[in-house]
Amino acid sequence: MFRTLFILSAFHIAACAGPALMPLPVKAVPLDGKLAIDSVFRVTIAGHTDPRLEAGVRRFISRLGRETGIPFTPEKATAATLTVETRDSGPADATLGEDESYRLDISSSGAHLVAPTTTGALRGLATFAQLIVPGPSGYQVAAIAIDDHPRFPWRGLMIDASRHWMPVQMIERNLDAMASVKLNVLHWHLSDDQGFRVESKRFPRLQELGSEGNFYTQQDVRHVVDYARGRGIRVVPEFDIPGHATSWFTGYPELASAKGSYQIERKWGIFEPTIDPTREETYKFLEELLAEMAVLFPDPYFHIGGDEVKDTHWKQSPAIQDFEKTHGINGSRELQAYFNRRVQEILKKQGKTMIGWDEVLSPGLAPDTVIQSWRGQQSLAEAAAKGYRGLLSFGYYLDHIRPAGYHYGIDPLDGAAKDLDEKLTARILGGEACMWVEYVSEETVDSRIWPRMAAIAERFWSPREVKDVESMYARLEPISRKLEWEGVKHRANYGPMLDRLAGGQPSGPVRVLADAVEPTEIQRRRDTHRYTSLVPLNRLVDTAHPESELPRHPDHTELRVLFSRWSQNHALFLKLAHDNFLLEEAIPLSKNLAALGDIGLKALDYLQSGKPVPENWIKEQIATVDGMKQPIAEVRLAAVRPVRELLDSLASQR
Amino acid sequence: MFRTLFILSAFHIAACAGPALMPLPVKAVPLDGKLAIDSVFRVTIAGHTDPRLEAGVRRFISRLGRETGIPFTPEKATAATLTVETRDSGPADATLGEDESYRLDISSSGAHLVAPTTTGALRGLATFAQLIVPGPSGYQVAAIAIDDHPRFPWRGLMIDASRHWMPVQMIERNLDAMASVKLNVLHWHLSDDQGFRVESKRFPRLQELGSEGNFYTQQDVRHVVDYARGRGIRVVPEFDIPGHATSWFTGYPELASAKGSYQIERKWGIFEPTIDPTREETYKFLEELLAEMAVLFPDPYFHIGGDEVKDTHWKQSPAIQDFEKTHGINGSRELQAYFNRRVQEILKKQGKTMIGWDEVLSPGLAPDTVIQSWRGQQSLAEAAAKGYRGLLSFGYYLDHIRPAGYHYGIDPLDGAAKDLDEKLTARILGGEACMWVEYVSEETVDSRIWPRMAAIAERFWSPREVKDVESMYARLEPISRKLEWEGVKHRANYGPMLDRLAGGQPSGPVRVLADAVEPTEIQRRRDTHRYTSLVPLNRLVDTAHPESELPRHPDHTELRVLFSRWSQNHALFLKLAHDNFLLEEAIPLSKNLAALGDIGLKALDYLQSGKPVPENWIKEQIATVDGMKQPIAEVRLAAVRPVRELLDSLASQR
Repeated sequence: MFRTLFILSAFHIAACAGPALMPLPVKAVPLDGKLAIDSVFRVTIAGHTDPRLEAGVRRFISRLGRETGIPFTPEKATAATLTVETRDSGPADATLGEDESYRLDISSSGAHLVAPTTTGALRGLATFAQLIVPGPSGYQVAAIAIDDHPRFPWRGLMIDASRHWMPVQMIERNLDAMASVKLNVLHWHLSDDQGFRVESKRFPRLQELGSEGNFYTQQDVRHVVDYARGRGIRVVPEFDIPGHATSWFTGYPELASAKGSYQIERKWGIFEPTIDPTREETYKFLEELLAEMAVLFPDPYFHIGGDEVKDTHWKQSPAIQDFEKTHGINGSRELQAYFNRRVQEILKKQGKTMIGWDEVLSPGLAPDTVIQSWRGQQSLAEAAAKGYRGLLSFGYYLDHIRPAGYHYGIDPLDGAAKDLDEKLTARILGGEACMWVEYVSEETVDSRIWPRMAAIAERFWSPREVKDVESMYARLEPISRKLEWEGVKHRANYGPMLDRLAGGQPSGPVRVLADAVEPTEIQRRRDTHRYTSLVPLNRLVDTAHPESELPRHPDHTELRVLFSRWSQNHALFLKLAHDNFLLEEAIPLSKNLAALGDIGLKALDYLQSGKPVPENWIKEQIATVDGMKQPIAEVRLAAVRPVRELLDSLASQR
Repeated sequence: MFRTLFILSAFHIAACAGPALMPLPVKAVPLDGKLAIDSVFRVTIAGHTDPRLEAGVRRFISRLGRETGIPFTPEKATAATLTVETRDSGPADATLGEDESYRLDISSSGAHLVAPTTTGALRGLATFAQLIVPGPSGYQVAAIAIDDHPRFPWRGLMIDASRHWMPVQMIERNLDAMASVKLNVLHWHLSDDQGFRVESKRFPRLQELGSEGNFYTQQDVRHVVDYARGRGIRVVPEFDIPGHATSWFTGYPELASAKGSYQIERKWGIFEPTIDPTREETYKFLEELLAEMAVLFPDPYFHIGGDEVKDTHWKQSPAIQDFEKTHGINGSRELQAYFNRRVQEILKKQGKTMIGWDEVLSPGLAPDTVIQSWRGQQSLAEAAAKGYRGLLSFGYYLDHIRPAGYHYGIDPLDGAAKDLDEKLTARILGGEACMWVEYVSEETVDSRIWPRMAAIAERFWSPREVKDVESMYARLEPISRKLEWEGVKHRANYGPMLDRLAGGQPSGPVRVLADAVEPTEIQRRRDTHRYTSLVPLNRLVDTAHPESELPRHPDHTELRVLFSRWSQNHALFLKLAHDNFLLEEAIPLSKNLAALGDIGLKALDYLQSGKPVPENWIKEQIATVDGMKQPIAEVRLAAVRPVRELLDSLASQR
C-alpha cells in the first residue's frame, strides 16, 4: 500500500520541509504522495466505537472546517478518506497510565488510524490535524507512516484560577489546545489567599465571601470534568492548605490559626494566615468539604498544595504551641507533617491519592503520595528513593516569562534524576507546566501559556533524544498558528490589546514596537512592588508576546525590511503617544527601536557594500546597542538581538 | 454644576478632537473638565429600576472592564460616579415607537443619565461607553451635556441565516454591537432555498430535511428574543414565501407548485420552486406553522418575504392555471397578491402585522402592511401615498461591498420621498441594512457588517443634517475599535485568516498586501459563476476588509513608510506563496503593490526635492497606475488611491 523508503529519526523529520508536528512522534516514515483534503473528506469509524470517539471525530471535522474554511459535506463522499479503528474504548475516564498509543498510515488514496483505545485514537487525530497544510492545488497531507506513544504518563498544565479569575470558557479553550499537543492532565489550582473558586453546598460562605462572585458552580465543574474527559484529559483539583488559605477564612475565620476577621487578599506574596492544624474542628470541616469535592472531581488524585507555609501565627498561638508540646511535635515542620497525615487519612477515606508540593514530603506519608516539585529534579530523586512518585514542575513555570527554548531544555530525568535505576526512574511520572496568574489576566493568559506550552508538551511526550532547539523553534511557529484553530486566544487577543494601547487609532506603529519587545522576567515585575489584584494588566508589557516573533534567522532582505520599519516608526509612534498614558512609558523604547533600525541599516550597508568599517564605529554601536538591553517599562527590546548579531559578524570580518 | 459655554451642532462636535460618537447625538455641549474612570468607578440606579436596566448596567460595567482592562471593584467606591435615573420601565418588550430618548450630563465630579424609559437609559449607557478614552493620566471622559433621541423609530439589520449558517453566538455578538450603535430591530431571515433554520415541532421535517442539522431550536429562538429584548432590540422573523422556499419542499414536497422530490439548493440565485398558492392544504399548513412561529416570535410584526417569485411552475401547472381562471385571477402577479392576502388573514388571526418586500405591494393588502423596499425611495413614496408604511433597504445592502460613505449618503427621505408631506413622511418608519450571505460565512460575516453598519446606524438615528462624510470616516475608525469590545469579530478574525493564507508561516507579508486591497463589488463575484454553498470562503478576497483601513489623509511621512513597505514586500510575499494555492492567485497583486510603492516613493522624492518632473514620467506612471485598478483574484488594489492622488498633485504643480 505504501513504500517504506527509509526510516528517519524524529529529529530528521523535523528538519524536512513540510508539516510541523509537535510533539514529534516516536517514529515517522515519510512516503511518496499526498492525500488531498477537500469538501468530500470523510472520517469513518471502523469496528469498535463509543460516544467519546464519535464526539472526537465530530470535533476533528469541525476543527478542520475552521482551519481550512472548507464546508465539509461528507454525505457526498463515496469512500472514507480517513478510517479510524480502535480495539476497545479503554477506561471510561481518562486514567493515569492508560494506553495512548496509535498508528497512522497516510497514502495518496486514504488514511488509516489504528489505536488500542479511544484516547489513542484522539491522539492520532491530533497528529492528523497538524499534518494538514495548503499545497500547490489545495489542502493536503503528505503521505507518512507514524507509530507513536508517550514517554511519560503524566503530562500536565496547572492553571491558577485564584489570583485572577479564569472563566469556564478559558478552561474549555485551553483543554482543546492541551489535547492538540497531547497533554493529559489539567491541574486546577482552585483556592488560594486571593480567592476560593468552587461552589461548596456544604460550606457556601467559602464561595460567597471568598470569591467576589467569581467561582465555578458545581455544574461548571461537572461540565469541565466531562469536557476534559472527552479529550482524554484528567482533571486534578488543588485546594492549597494549610497556607495560601486566606480566602477560606473570610467565611470561616474559626479555621485560622489567629483570631480575627479576614478579607480576600489583594496583594501577591506569601501571607501569614494559616489553617489551625491543632483543632479537631478543622479536620471535621475538611472531612466534610473534601467528601463533597471528592465526588465533584472523580479523578483518584487530589492535590492539597502544602507549599510556602508561614508559621508566624503558629508560633504566636499559645494553644498551638501547647498542642505541639502535648503531642510531642517538634516545631512547625513537624506540625505541618502532622496536618498532612491527618488530611491524607481523610482523602484515603474518599479513595483519593494525595499530591502535594515539595514541602509535604515528610515522615509518615503514605507510600502512594505524589510529590510535585517546584524545587528541581533533586527533590524528585530523593522522593523516589523514599518510594514516592513525583512530577517535575521546576523549570516549567510559564509565568516566569522565559523563552520556550529554556523550558524545552529541562528534562524530568536530568540532573539528580539522571542516574536513577529503572525502578526509581519509573516513579517519576512526568511533569506539569505551571501557569500562576498574579501578573496575568483572562485576556493575557492564553499568550502566557501558548505556544511555549507546546514545547514543554513535546518534552513530556516525545523520546528523550528529541531535544534539538532549532528544530523545536522551526516547528513552534506553525504550531502556534495551528493552535489558533483550537480556540485559544494567544494571538487573537493581541490585535485588540494593541488597539487598546493606541486608544482607538490605527495601531500599526504600536504593533511594530510590540512585535519587537518582550516582557521582562517576572522578578522585575515583582520588584516594582506596585502590583495587586486591582492593578490593570493593560500595558505594553501585558500585550507583548512572552517571546517575540521576530524572525530567528532573518536573511539580509528581511533584515532591511525590519530595520527600515523600526527606523521609520518612531515619528508615527510619537503622534499616537501624545496624551495617552498607556503609551507614554514606551516612548523611550520606541526611540531606541528607531536607533536600532538606523544602526542595523548602516551595518547592512557596510556588510553588503564590502566597504571597510571604521573600528571605532563598531565599538560605539555595540556599546549603544548593549545599553539598550536594559528594561524600560518592564519590557526589553528583543530587537537588540539581530542588530547585535550583525555588528558581531561585522566585527569578526575585520 | 456644569457651565454651558456654547452649543455646538453635532457636526462641530465631531470635528473636535476627543471621543468619537456614532451615531451623533441630537445635541451635545462640551464642557470643561474630565471625569476619571478608574477601579472605583461605580454606577448607581436611582429611583425606578427593573431587571432589564440592572442587567444593562452589569453588562456596561463588564464591557468597560474588557475595554480598559480595569478590574472594577465598585464596593470600594464611596459615591456613585454615574447615576442612572429612569422615570419608568417603559414597555416590557422592545416596542416600535417607544421612547428611546435620554439626557447625559458629565462633569469632573460625576455623571448623570436621565431617561423616561429603560430603553432610553440603555441608549445613554451606549453613548457613555463611546466617550471613554485613554487620557494623559488614565482613562477619562471629557465633560459634556448630551440630549438625544432617534430620528426614525425602526433602525434595523437584516441577517440572512439561510445561505450560510449563522450560529446563535453570531447573533448574540451582533446584537451587542447593534445595541452599541442604537439599532433596535434584528430582522432575521430564517428560510430560503438553501435552508430552513428554525425548529418546528408541528412540521419537524422542515428543519430535519431542510437544514443539514443547522437550525435554531425553539429554545435558541426564545434565548435570542430575550437577549435582544434585554438590549432594546425587537426581533422580526422572516419566512420567505412563496418563492425562495426550496428548503421547505425537501420535507413537504406537496407544498410545491411542481411535483417532484426536492433537495436543498446549493447554488445562488432565483429558483423556480414555488409554493402552490391554489391548494387549500397550503393555507392549512401555513396556518399551523405560522401559529407556532407567532408564539415563538412575540413581536407584532412578521415578515413573509414575497420577493423574486418565479412563475415558471405556476405557468406550467394546468391546475394552477385552471384555478386562476375559475377565480378570475389575471396572471401571476395577481396570483401572488391573492396568496399574500390569504397569508395576511392568517397572520391577522395571530395578531401579527405583515411585512413584505416591494413585490408584495398589490391591491387588497390590509392598510397596516409594512413595505420593505430594496428598490428605492420611489417605492416607499408610492406605498406611503397608498397608505402603507415603509422601510428603506435600497442602498443598504452590506453584501454589495460598497464603501461606508456610499451607504451613508443614502437617506430614507431622499429622492422621491423628499417632498412628501408630514403625514406621508411619517409613514416611512426608517430602514434596515441587509446582510445577505451567499458570499459570506460565519467567519467573515462580522467584517461584512462592521464597521460600515455603524455609519448606516447614524443615518437612521441622527438628525437629517448630520451627513458630513469626512466626519463620519474620522469617527468610524475609533468606533470600529470600540466595537471589538462588544465581541464582534470583524477585526479579530482578520489575523487568523491571514495566518491561514500564509499556511502557518509568519503572515506579515500577507498582511501588508491584504491591508492594501478590497474585495470587488458583489457583481464581479457573481460573474465568476463558480460559487455554491460548497465553495470555501478562505481566499484573500474573503480575508480583506470591505473597506481598506489605509489612512485616508496620510501625510508624507506616513506615505513614505507605506510606500517603502509595499516596495519591499514582494520578495517576502513570493517566498510565502511558493506551493501555496491560497496565495498563488495573489502574486500579480503583490507585484503591482510593489510597483505602486516604487512609483509612490519616486513621486514623493520629486515632491519633496522640488526637482522638475519629466512630463512623460507622470503620464506613464498614471497609465501604469490606472492599469492596476483592474481586479485580480476578485480584489482591487486600494493602494492605487494614494499613489494616484500623489501623481495628480505632481501633475497639477507642473
